Amino acid sequence: MSSLVASGKTKELYTTDDPNVLRVHYTNHTTAGDGERNELIPDKGAVNNQISSLIFGYLNQAGVATHFVNQLDATDQLNKRVQMIPLEVVIRNLAAGHFQKRFGTTYLRPLTKPVVEYFFKSDELHDPMVNDSDAQALDIATEDQLVTMRTIALKVNQLMIKLFKSMNIILVDFKVEFGITDDGQIILADEISPDSCRLLDADTKQSLDKDVFRKQTGDMMTGYREILSKLQAALK
Amino acid sequence: MSSLVASGKTKELYTTDDPNVLRVHYTNHTTAGDGERNELIPDKGAVNNQISSLIFGYLNQAGVATHFVNQLDATDQLNKRVQMIPLEVVIRNLAAGHFQKRFGTTYLRPLTKPVVEYFFKSDELHDPMVNDSDAQALDIATEDQLVTMRTIALKVNQLMIKLFKSMNIILVDFKVEFGITDDGQIILADEISPDSCRLLDADTKQSLDKDVFRKQTGDMMTGYREILSKLQAALK
Repeated sequence: MSSLVASGKTKELYTTDDPNVLRVHYTNHTTAGDGERNELIPDKGAVNNQISSLIFGYLNQAGVATHFVNQLDATDQLNKRVQMIPLEVVIRNLAAGHFQKRFGTTYLRPLTKPVVEYFFKSDELHDPMVNDSDAQALDIATEDQLVTMRTIALKVNQLMIKLFKSMNIILVDFKVEFGITDDGQIILADEISPDSCRLLDADTKQSLDKDVFRKQTGDMMTGYREILSKLQAALK
Repeated sequence: MSSLVASGKTKELYTTDDPNVLRVHYTNHTTAGDGERNELIPDKGAVNNQISSLIFGYLNQAGVATHFVNQLDATDQLNKRVQMIPLEVVIRNLAAGHFQKRFGTTYLRPLTKPVVEYFFKSDELHDPMVNDSDAQALDIATEDQLVTMRTIALKVNQLMIKLFKSMNIILVDFKVEFGITDDGQIILADEISPDSCRLLDADTKQSLDKDVFRKQTGDMMTGYREILSKLQAALK
């Protein structure tokens, strides 16, 4: 028997026979503008499930502790059950999106070093930015947990830059989330896909990610499918 | 001869015979809402000049390196000339203001530990929050400078809590700024006054600071004068 444990904006979590493992079903829901837009885009769930499985498999192999167990079928994967830390961890290599707007920089302004930012997951509060002392003052995370997340995030960034560079793709920025296992270990969780990354064709600088949906500049799935096929070639 | 070097929202800076020292004139300008409101409140400059002189004198004596040299007269003081770091450094002991709104907490919610937040000084960008990696990525401050500012800010907080506690006043939060001397030392600069602190009567919880002006709940100067007379008594 499999029962629904939780349902997010784009994924549904189900129990499995193993109490420490969940089946995660990737839906076609695509959201933007703090959830104001929510559309069903055919095949998106399947493509993102495959992309995230490939990237998490690559990170597992590179020695990063993640929640990923294995891909089950087109739309589903098995993940270790963790207690999620309610933070979005954003890693930036070039200025875009929220950062670009906040600091009034040009699009893709180079950064002196990679940025790691934490945002508190709360639709009601519109995911406010938190620094390390905010997170500790509000008991969202401990100092050790924050340092651990930042260290893993920067390692993942280096591995992802390398992977995407081999595909002639620029990793502008991406968002990850972390969970805590029963024995207190912090591991990479959630997904990594064009829903959560800004990825540009290195030659044309064309977006191959959700910015196409956010800005309504074309068929989003073209870029998603290109990412998937290039990942399949790079990681085979 | 004394010439105007710079003019801020509430203060004017003039040269002196010593190229390393500026005369700072405290005006009666009082601003709120990102500068939208700007009013002249009689005697405010004089009261704040005296309050800030007393507090900076106390901090100097306690071993904190600051720009404060001495008070000249009712409205003016001498400060070391420094290159300002364009950050507002906010220290919080209880939730209020921007923090309270951002995280949807109750007013004066206790914090597990003091918060230190950096905001990039830019009227145009509405002083966006920056974390350590933002500040480094945009070359606003170095890692060493950020650590130094945080360390000094937390020491100042402890000294200020102690001082105000002896006056039966609660220090909710306050803002400081830092400057760099010619020889590269980071020292406390700008002012510390009821313009830049939230201060409450410990018994009545009444505001003795600019919140009275922000929220238009009464005569702001009553609280400012109470702070001044209590400081004069505490530090004589």
